[in-house]
Amino acid sequence: MTREQCEIADENDELKIFRNKFKIPQDTIYLIGNSLGLCPIESQKIANRVIKQEWGQNHIDSWNTAGWYHLPVKVGNKIGKIIGAEQNETIISDSTSINIFKCLGTSIAIQKIKNPDRRIILLERENFPTDLYIAQGLVNLLSTDEYKIRYFDDDNRLEDVLGDDVVCILLSHVNYRTGQLYNMKQITKLAHKVDAHIIWDLCHSVGSVPINLTKVDADFAVGCTYKYLNSGPGAPAFIYVNKKHQNVAWQPLTGWFGHQAPFKMSKLYEPAPNITNYLVGTPQVLQISIIDHSVGITLDADMQAIRKKSLALGDLFIKLMDEKCPSLKLVTPFEYEKRGSHLSYQHENAYAISNLMRKRGVYGDFRFPDILRFAMTPLYTRFVDIWDVIGIISEVINDAEYEGFDGNCVT
Amino acid sequence: MTREQCEIADENDELKIFRNKFKIPQDTIYLIGNSLGLCPIESQKIANRVIKQEWGQNHIDSWNTAGWYHLPVKVGNKIGKIIGAEQNETIISDSTSINIFKCLGTSIAIQKIKNPDRRIILLERENFPTDLYIAQGLVNLLSTDEYKIRYFDDDNRLEDVLGDDVVCILLSHVNYRTGQLYNMKQITKLAHKVDAHIIWDLCHSVGSVPINLTKVDADFAVGCTYKYLNSGPGAPAFIYVNKKHQNVAWQPLTGWFGHQAPFKMSKLYEPAPNITNYLVGTPQVLQISIIDHSVGITLDADMQAIRKKSLALGDLFIKLMDEKCPSLKLVTPFEYEKRGSHLSYQHENAYAISNLMRKRGVYGDFRFPDILRFAMTPLYTRFVDIWDVIGIISEVINDAEYEGFDGNCVT
Repeated sequence: MTREQCEIADENDELKIFRNKFKIPQDTIYLIGNSLGLCPIESQKIANRVIKQEWGQNHIDSWNTAGWYHLPVKVGNKIGKIIGAEQNETIISDSTSINIFKCLGTSIAIQKIKNPDRRIILLERENFPTDLYIAQGLVNLLSTDEYKIRYFDDDNRLEDVLGDDVVCILLSHVNYRTGQLYNMKQITKLAHKVDAHIIWDLCHSVGSVPINLTKVDADFAVGCTYKYLNSGPGAPAFIYVNKKHQNVAWQPLTGWFGHQAPFKMSKLYEPAPNITNYLVGTPQVLQISIIDHSVGITLDADMQAIRKKSLALGDLFIKLMDEKCPSLKLVTPFEYEKRGSHLSYQHENAYAISNLMRKRGVYGDFRFPDILRFAMTPLYTRFVDIWDVIGIISEVINDAEYEGFDGNCVT
Repeated sequence: MTREQCEIADENDELKIFRNKFKIPQDTIYLIGNSLGLCPIESQKIANRVIKQEWGQNHIDSWNTAGWYHLPVKVGNKIGKIIGAEQNETIISDSTSINIFKCLGTSIAIQKIKNPDRRIILLERENFPTDLYIAQGLVNLLSTDEYKIRYFDDDNRLEDVLGDDVVCILLSHVNYRTGQLYNMKQITKLAHKVDAHIIWDLCHSVGSVPINLTKVDADFAVGCTYKYLNSGPGAPAFIYVNKKHQNVAWQPLTGWFGHQAPFKMSKLYEPAPNITNYLVGTPQVLQISIIDHSVGITLDADMQAIRKKSLALGDLFIKLMDEKCPSLKLVTPFEYEKRGSHLSYQHENAYAISNLMRKRGVYGDFRFPDILRFAMTPLYTRFVDIWDVIGIISEVINDAEYEGFDGNCVT
């Protein structure tokens, strides 16, 4: 393998035109799009339109004339196409964390009707912290005597701890730390076997791994828009609710925008009879307008092509790392069916390596205590980037001195 | 009173320079800033800086270099100055509705420790719907057998239904519909007399009425930034928590950004020992940056000056309406100590009048079934605007034919 062969691979890349749609930071190789996706060039134009024209000139009229009211569902449905949802099963609202709360609360409320004795929320011990925290907070609110959390891990496997006392399972499709991809079809089936719900956290898979929620008959899903969907820091998240669950019980955050007739100003909450009841407060117009465009880029690119390139970039990365940096140990499974779109490596000096890489313009990221993550973002990562990154890592690896972790890194 | 006298009043207005800081829509008199505040001209520049430079060029580095991490507290503290909070009692996060949920949940958790037998959440029946709905949803989640909502209204006055079974009172400082201003000091004292908490919803008072939460020893408060704080449609809200309540119990939405060390990725939620634990997901950087600037305008203007002009505009409005449109009945109390910054009028043809006004470029708003609201926004409303508006209303009022309400109006 040579750098010239990487250049040829880039030349033949069917996704190569998409790189032009992003602002590529100077002197930087950006392998951290799983933390914050790069900025689509058009974002600025959209923000200017919303601020200057829609808000500035047309103000409240824009709720109707610019379609502000319909943004959460319209953009939700665009994401729905990426995750294999049916129409009106996906909506943009709030953050991933808050949407997890909605899913857990709704699942509990539905099971109260269908399987009233169940009290267990099943979590993977290694799931992203906010998933664990939100469940812990909800159980605390409901009083710990009543609902309980059960964890599964390598020693206590899901199959072994999943019984008919389980309300729901909350699990990430791709683990944030290891990059492992879980078998959505198999695990959803497992859950349904005992009539438990499954809530899929798609933060690290949406926009990078093909997903078909309808096909696997998933119950709930959440995901973020600022990673592989490139919608900006802290952009609102999405929530998916299978139609069969939409009108069974209230979701717990019953705000006026989820009411069936918000402007009737009635005194009793009556949920909208569809995905709209997962809205809470007034939608974040500016950011949702930006998401609208960013998600469009991913839709244009096609998820199969994205996945194909993601795996090819990953194969190259793994091969070159094996050759040039053998002291870094691959944590992510090599098999395609178990690999997401970022690769995680373990090294005792991971934090120092990460810092030295950054000084050389290479952005991967560090996860406490000893993990380096490198995201393959096919819309803007090139094969030559991978070649160059491995060259730099192999140079810095010998310089790496341990520096204490100061807590200042970002998801 | 003549139009010339209004022009002189504008000439002598100590706040007149602030109008230049806003994009004033053409051919429009905008008396609906209590629904969506006008757009500060600088907003566009700020959005461009955040998108192009901070996100586009410096990406994840901006969490530190551009101070993204500190935005929620930094801007929260700016709002804190407007509402008389101490440092680190106010933070920007999520929506008003979600922040109400946090306050109610925290109040319940604190009372579980301090007054464990209490089960009543006290609401004003005429409060803004989302306040009612969020409480209804929380009680539903906790199971209706346990916690109960009690309402107060004209027939069942607060004093009469407030007993030692009350967890907390949730009340708007200014009622959205009537424009009535409540006595924050007196009502907070009433609540504390029976050891109940009070949660103040400041949506219709922040930025228009002087507030001193420290002086009245309020427990919790929430408020929105897109009305009198002019921060854009759906911009995130703020939450205030009195320091004495910050470390007593968990707020219910325990997301990773509220953890005491988010990037340690620990598996158990441990709340940050300060207002930061009221964050949930990743902060909305773009919108909070815009709030930062908008709130600065209000801070520069001084709340006493804003209040003084608001009342003067209101006095003029009421006087001219009395003279020229006697069929419209003032709902808002006339007394200064009971008057917020918008005036509400009742008329059986309110909806039709509202529509006809809009065709003439006058934006007030309609509230189901028969209320017209007119907001005095001293930063950009002139005395001549009031003069002109009353002229237009007196002309359209005779043309008003009833048209059925189609549900398409905006808060």
